Amino acid sequence: MSHNSFGHLFRVTTWGESHGPSIGCVVDGCPPGISLTEAEIQVELDRRRPGQSRFTTQRQEPDQVRILSGVFEDDKTGGPVTTGTSISLLIENVDQRSKDYSDIRERYRPGHADYTYDAKYGVRDYRGGGRSSARETAMRVAAGAIARKILKGVTVRGALVRIGEHEIDRNRWSWDEVGNNPFFCPDAVMAERWADYLDGIRKAGSSVGAVVEVIAEGVPVGLGEPIYGKLDADIAAAMMSINAVKGVEIGNGFEAGSIRGEDNADEMRMGNDGKPLFLSNHAGGVLGGISTGQPVVARFAVKPTSSMLTSMRSVTRSGDDVDVMTKGRHDPCVGIRAVPVGEAMLAIVLADHYLRNRGQTGADALA
Amino acid sequence: MSHNSFGHLFRVTTWGESHGPSIGCVVDGCPPGISLTEAEIQVELDRRRPGQSRFTTQRQEPDQVRILSGVFEDDKTGGPVTTGTSISLLIENVDQRSKDYSDIRERYRPGHADYTYDAKYGVRDYRGGGRSSARETAMRVAAGAIARKILKGVTVRGALVRIGEHEIDRNRWSWDEVGNNPFFCPDAVMAERWADYLDGIRKAGSSVGAVVEVIAEGVPVGLGEPIYGKLDADIAAAMMSINAVKGVEIGNGFEAGSIRGEDNADEMRMGNDGKPLFLSNHAGGVLGGISTGQPVVARFAVKPTSSMLTSMRSVTRSGDDVDVMTKGRHDPCVGIRAVPVGEAMLAIVLADHYLRNRGQTGADALA
Amino acid sequence: MSHNSFGHLFRVTTWGESHGPSIGCVVDGCPPGISLTEAEIQVELDRRRPGQSRFTTQRQEPDQVRILSGVFEDDKTGGPVTTGTSISLLIENVDQRSKDYSDIRERYRPGHADYTYDAKYGVRDYRGGGRSSARETAMRVAAGAIARKILKGVTVRGALVRIGEHEIDRNRWSWDEVGNNPFFCPDAVMAERWADYLDGIRKAGSSVGAVVEVIAEGVPVGLGEPIYGKLDADIAAAMMSINAVKGVEIGNGFEAGSIRGEDNADEMRMGNDGKPLFLSNHAGGVLGGISTGQPVVARFAVKPTSSMLTSMRSVTRSGDDVDVMTKGRHDPCVGIRAVPVGEAMLAIVLADHYLRNRGQTGADALA
Amino acid sequence: MSHNSFGHLFRVTTWGESHGPSIGCVVDGCPPGISLTEAEIQVELDRRRPGQSRFTTQRQEPDQVRILSGVFEDDKTGGPVTTGTSISLLIENVDQRSKDYSDIRERYRPGHADYTYDAKYGVRDYRGGGRSSARETAMRVAAGAIARKILKGVTVRGALVRIGEHEIDRNRWSWDEVGNNPFFCPDAVMAERWADYLDGIRKAGSSVGAVVEVIAEGVPVGLGEPIYGKLDADIAAAMMSINAVKGVEIGNGFEAGSIRGEDNADEMRMGNDGKPLFLSNHAGGVLGGISTGQPVVARFAVKPTSSMLTSMRSVTRSGDDVDVMTKGRHDPCVGIRAVPVGEAMLAIVLADHYLRNRGQTGADALA
Repeated sequence: MSHNSFGHLFRVTTWGESHGPSIGCVVDGCPPGISLTEAEIQVELDRRRPGQSRFTTQRQEPDQVRILSGVFEDDKTGGPVTTGTSISLLIENVDQRSKDYSDIRERYRPGHADYTYDAKYGVRDYRGGGRSSARETAMRVAAGAIARKILKGVTVRGALVRIGEHEIDRNRWSWDEVGNNPFFCPDAVMAERWADYLDGIRKAGSSVGAVVEVIAEGVPVGLGEPIYGKLDADIAAAMMSINAVKGVEIGNGFEAGSIRGEDNADEMRMGNDGKPLFLSNHAGGVLGGISTGQPVVARFAVKPTSSMLTSMRSVTRSGDDVDVMTKGRHDPCVGIRAVPVGEAMLAIVLADHYLRNRGQTGADALA
Repeated sequence: MSHNSFGHLFRVTTWGESHGPSIGCVVDGCPPGISLTEAEIQVELDRRRPGQSRFTTQRQEPDQVRILSGVFEDDKTGGPVTTGTSISLLIENVDQRSKDYSDIRERYRPGHADYTYDAKYGVRDYRGGGRSSARETAMRVAAGAIARKILKGVTVRGALVRIGEHEIDRNRWSWDEVGNNPFFCPDAVMAERWADYLDGIRKAGSSVGAVVEVIAEGVPVGLGEPIYGKLDADIAAAMMSINAVKGVEIGNGFEAGSIRGEDNADEMRMGNDGKPLFLSNHAGGVLGGISTGQPVVARFAVKPTSSMLTSMRSVTRSGDDVDVMTKGRHDPCVGIRAVPVGEAMLAIVLADHYLRNRGQTGADALA
Repeated sequence: MSHNSFGHLFRVTTWGESHGPSIGCVVDGCPPGISLTEAEIQVELDRRRPGQSRFTTQRQEPDQVRILSGVFEDDKTGGPVTTGTSISLLIENVDQRSKDYSDIRERYRPGHADYTYDAKYGVRDYRGGGRSSARETAMRVAAGAIARKILKGVTVRGALVRIGEHEIDRNRWSWDEVGNNPFFCPDAVMAERWADYLDGIRKAGSSVGAVVEVIAEGVPVGLGEPIYGKLDADIAAAMMSINAVKGVEIGNGFEAGSIRGEDNADEMRMGNDGKPLFLSNHAGGVLGGISTGQPVVARFAVKPTSSMLTSMRSVTRSGDDVDVMTKGRHDPCVGIRAVPVGEAMLAIVLADHYLRNRGQTGADALA
Repeated sequence: MSHNSFGHLFRVTTWGESHGPSIGCVVDGCPPGISLTEAEIQVELDRRRPGQSRFTTQRQEPDQVRILSGVFEDDKTGGPVTTGTSISLLIENVDQRSKDYSDIRERYRPGHADYTYDAKYGVRDYRGGGRSSARETAMRVAAGAIARKILKGVTVRGALVRIGEHEIDRNRWSWDEVGNNPFFCPDAVMAERWADYLDGIRKAGSSVGAVVEVIAEGVPVGLGEPIYGKLDADIAAAMMSINAVKGVEIGNGFEAGSIRGEDNADEMRMGNDGKPLFLSNHAGGVLGGISTGQPVVARFAVKPTSSMLTSMRSVTRSGDDVDVMTKGRHDPCVGIRAVPVGEAMLAIVLADHYLRNRGQTGADALA
């Protein structure tokens, strides 16, 4: 959880800039013997890949991942498995178009990290946002694909639940719909409305915010380390570390600040299997920082990108006032592609805590 | 950020249970030469101390802190200063009343960590919630007092902005009011309304949620480590790790998910001092995970406690259904006392990042 | 492994100065359900306690340890067990005699950390060496006692194998002898010779170096994390972090730098139990950073203390030349009391790696 | 200091197997604005490169390094500088000859990590030792080259001081000689003797151990964190983590265990520059875990490789006795190529502690 690394036992370190030769990551601490192929990682990457609809950036990147280390043929199955050593993943940058970005060398785009990187480091790779570009999130998705392989029996899924002023109707929620529209929207009716709405935003050269919900089902009870390694605290950090995210909530979230204890409580009864059963899930699957065995539910808000056709007031590196307008390709709603990224981060946090819990308590909660 | 430790260079490790002999913490990595007295820490502890109004738990704890190590007389000033070694702080538990809690030995209180601790560890100190009690937050406040001493020129303040359905009017915001009422409320009119409202909640044996806002002014530009040590990601983890917190947001927060880019942008112009000046602060003082130099603004939602006079369905350790009702003292709105805790956590994150930035870049941003 | 903390999953943080009110530690990440009493820790502390013979410092410290948190009565056994939360241990300093040390406020004792602490921190607790005093090692022994409880079936023992020019005869090695003399010497003949030798050193107001050997038997195969968490690398750091230690070796150690491959190899054959059996242990129980299942053998050299009756040239804080002679109590051979400290550090490293291996691989190597 | 990462603020993560497509590392936490080219790293890699004399393995690897991220043209100097983000380095494996190693798939080579990797992970890349191969040390040297760039004014050099029974004569020590022979030997006379000696070892298909000494001059006073981040403890871990290393010592090292205090002391006098001056350096530049300002001196013993033409008893994966003899290329004295690796590790530890000290104390010790 410092610089470019995330996780404690299952630890992901990413590198690379938007317009450098390649991007990559090292996944360290992965358990041995997990079957893993490039194709399995590719499936997840393809869900995040840009240029798949008119609603996301038109940058064309095949995002073909290569596994450079840490996986070897297993003599038992003959297939490739993790060896317990560091796994290196690499994706070449293909569609770099550096010329598009030459004019932002001197100008700080408002709402971007241009100014803060420069103020902190004194130098920055300005091409396409360099290190601060959301291109980095491809490696989160790749690492998340490995985390998913560790989480046997756990399903991590996400959906977009709001674009701007339009929120889905939860009564119409269908996971099957999520793959049927370019928004990861679980509400077929809303997906159509969003298409119109976002076309308007896009044509106006504007942008709009969104809210993503990610849910993990099958999470065993007992994951999370009080007091400062709480499962929800790590989820909060994970989601907030995604580009453009400005808020995170678990279960009832901010609504819990507005209601009474009677309405927020999750009562319990013994289930037929002899295990405690929660009668509701306002807590979002976490109590005292430890998973309850119910679905873990997190939501996060993604701000509208500041890359717009509207001219905005800003300043230059050398200290002059300037007006900035973002031409060229961009996402009218960056929240859309944040869905697989949020899923990946949730999977990474859960995999890490699965190993951490196994280390301390000896319980193999997913066995 | 694991188990009972928080922070990377400025690192806080807490210990102790609600009804053990004492609670304490070790603050490691503190810069040397910072003047520090027990009285300075006590001032902050007294703001969090229980039993100061009818709206918080009636547990009587003087919370007298002792410094056991890491501070020594400076031969230059003659006063006590930090020595750069580990600082140990200890508070005796006085008002323990263990008998009040004997009936929760077997029963899991809904909405509490009783069940999850038991499921994870197989054993728990059930007295007053043991380790999961908010009593632990006293040590956060104590450690935060040290963090404040490091943050020269930075002011970290907090306020309660919502209790249940009643939110303050920001036009009436006055920091001077915060100390004039038992709610840390910056809105004098709302403070009176809350008193009535909370009396009703309290008499009904109910509880209610709240929202806290914490603001750090004077934060220099450049604090925060992309990609996975972002300032806002660490703030999110810090706040979410506080007992009963279910959501965190920075700047516009979740509202950013509902609006357009034009309404969320923070335009810039050169200021009179030759530095860039932001014309608004929708970002809450953080861009790309790095502080902008504007006030850092975070909000978090605190759920209503599940300790209520209403009978709730639950189960026992041994697997029987049971109904649980919480008699005895409790906070009708645990969000109130979360205000100084939120401030402390923000100060700890900022002090840690101040040192981290100084380590990597060599810039003493607060000099 | 930074500042005042050691270990990754089983993590020990110590605090306190030689002449402060108390010293202590926090043991974090301990598995739950381990039975643990103050008496069990006390047994180990008593082995390190000063003033037990004329060969160690005459400082009188009962070193009575108290457990302040992290242990609670188990409802299954009725006895106290670890709860999985942070364990706080505290020992009061009793025999402080601050007056003895007032003259070293201004003078840097050669060979001590006086100058380096001052140069680094600008301030130091000079009383008895403050934080740099070997008094800190009491908490290592206490934490090591907890580590031993985790290491079911593992025996960690140590012995002094050299004092100055006199090395033991390994043919006379008897573990039973170690408790029969004030030197932790496994060679009864040498123990008598050391007594005479050290009396001479002591009466001359001189000091002498020593070599300690620590051995862990019953260590399962598979502990240690290549490449940078190697078991032997962590042991090296652990031993070198003990006061006055200047060298560490594993198995054949430095001798391996002088011999041929044929003489250093450990050949293997299948054992009767169907497991590989090593025919020798030149490797000291570690290959490629991972334990082999053989005894883990480490040795470390402890320098002679610079506290002597001989006058030594030095300088003052204010920059004047001065001659320094150490009156008062001190250890003529600090290596003696380093034996239980070395054992404790080995136990801590092994406990940490036991949990780390369990976390990554899921194998409960000690089950 | 876990799995495949080393360092705290300056953090190196390596990946890759001996016969995979490539090896690499990520250097995280590097200060921004450090000028850095591939050529500067290549110079160091070329010193470690195999196949440069008849005394090292004949594997032919050009070891051409590529910088994939974290470096960008500086607009002030026009040259490439570090940006403060993660630096990714990659080297293609060229001369893999996998066929040579097919027969070790089933057989555990004695003295190698074959058995322990298999026992721990259940699977291993057996080709050329896979992850446990010394090929990994190329990335240490590459990362060390970056560390050197940070350490302005510090010179880190190493030399081989012993091969088997032949130790250099320190009176003949000349740094200029180190580059004049294939052994990094500072003693021209001994270098010739070693050539003969090692030819005999090589022709006999045997191997022999060695001792390396690494020295850092220009290290400022104040680097190192007591108690558990001591400079010498981190050096010990760093050296012990190098393949085949079995012992580490600082300054007088193990000799300190044999002598009296009077002979081990480093007296002090005020120097002409108004700073304390040590009159000797038995401590090897570290007191109380903190650098003294004198040269930091470390030595480490490298065992003879077990890859020999002599037949050794061993076992197979499937549990049969077998005799193993290593044909093909190997190093008769792996200690030779450990010299640049030891230098690199010392540089990495010093760079890390330089940043750590700057973070905590604010002192830019190298400015």
